[in-house]
Amino acid sequence: MRNIKLFIEYDGTNYHGWQRQPKLDTVQLLLETAIQEITKEKATLLGSGRTDSGVHALQQIANFKTSSEINTEKMTKALNSMLPGDIVIIKSEEVELNFHSQYDSQSKTYIYKILNRSSHSAINRKRVWHIPYQLNFEKMQNAAKYLIGEHDFKVFSKTGSSIKTTVRNIHKASFHKNSDEIIEFNIQANGFLKGMVRLIVGTIVNVGKGKLTETEFKHIICKGQKHKYIKSAPPHGLYLVKVDYHS
Amino acid sequence: MRNIKLFIEYDGTNYHGWQRQPKLDTVQLLLETAIQEITKEKATLLGSGRTDSGVHALQQIANFKTSSEINTEKMTKALNSMLPGDIVIIKSEEVELNFHSQYDSQSKTYIYKILNRSSHSAINRKRVWHIPYQLNFEKMQNAAKYLIGEHDFKVFSKTGSSIKTTVRNIHKASFHKNSDEIIEFNIQANGFLKGMVRLIVGTIVNVGKGKLTETEFKHIICKGQKHKYIKSAPPHGLYLVKVDYHS
Repeated sequence: MRNIKLFIEYDGTNYHGWQRQPKLDTVQLLLETAIQEITKEKATLLGSGRTDSGVHALQQIANFKTSSEINTEKMTKALNSMLPGDIVIIKSEEVELNFHSQYDSQSKTYIYKILNRSSHSAINRKRVWHIPYQLNFEKMQNAAKYLIGEHDFKVFSKTGSSIKTTVRNIHKASFHKNSDEIIEFNIQANGFLKGMVRLIVGTIVNVGKGKLTETEFKHIICKGQKHKYIKSAPPHGLYLVKVDYHS
Repeated sequence: MRNIKLFIEYDGTNYHGWQRQPKLDTVQLLLETAIQEITKEKATLLGSGRTDSGVHALQQIANFKTSSEINTEKMTKALNSMLPGDIVIIKSEEVELNFHSQYDSQSKTYIYKILNRSSHSAINRKRVWHIPYQLNFEKMQNAAKYLIGEHDFKVFSKTGSSIKTTVRNIHKASFHKNSDEIIEFNIQANGFLKGMVRLIVGTIVNVGKGKLTETEFKHIICKGQKHKYIKSAPPHGLYLVKVDYHS
């Protein structure tokens, strides 16, 4: 038996997220179908975590076990030849049998892209959140600093998660501006709750709009306070960028 | 009568290029239809130049005359509300009556994006030319330098152009690498022939692949020599970025 680790890029626009669901096109379903076609075995693909409908991945990690002897280079090519253009295997690697994409992950990095100008973008319309209102970038940068460290993010999670703890440790969180009116939010943590990044971004955007002060945001983070301006950003600006493992 | 200048972004994927053609969806046709709906007048939209089927624009310029008194801000919003998401008016400006988008343009800038890695990109599959072979970046950079200045670009134009001269003056031409395996070609000239940027890029890529030497490329440019490795790059990596006018 071999354990194969896949590095996967996908455009989430046309999928109901990562996770297999009855009668819906999901990334996991399409990948498992392609793997089964190639290996002629029933395949279960374990992802590092779910992504919501419309969310993109520059590098999602998943693994599956197989008795197939196809080498990893051929596996990558065979999978890509069967997959639609919006799901791409960047590479495949053979890993130790006990490697588990989800349980072994040490940290994850997401970026969120905001287009802050009056008109939307034709080219990136399904890749950024278009906000035509003026945002106070400095206040958003300051608010992001309060995220760093260990906090209970229960108010930043969608209900329905059946998890042991809602405490997460944020390693990095910052906003950057680039020349073409794109504001990019970069966040790295030991793990994320369901909907967490989108709730953080939507809420910090409310700081940028002046609906919420930096101090109110700090209280939400440090005291876990609920607030009517805790809002979710739309999925299509979000990208899973990296999943880190102990080498 | 007023003369309105439009700054237009479009995703060329779903269009048969800029130029109006019978029974085909083109960017010009959709814009003229929207303008007519809003102004209730027959509209002729003059573009700074054509773009081919599949080619994108970050900033195409066009103008039309109208007796409508709708202010430019409302015009922009009204047009965007009627246009599909892959064509966006960035802004509208009222300009002097004698302004002509095509004849008054002083220079144009294009970029061409190449993804140089083994696997294609899911996110940017219709935005870059995927080249899985190793390219010699330094040779491509050197070749680009020969483009600068005034040359006869007849061998870099698609047949069928009925134009007075095939001489063009290239102001800038260079390749840049960025971190995520994207090679970007940037070219500015006083004007371009039909298919010229794509023929230049396709041919320089043949220098990068080692099919053509830098000296052979120089001879093609300086002596106007035909060559079997003058090839066209695909349209979906090309973006019209800017059209400059005397202020």
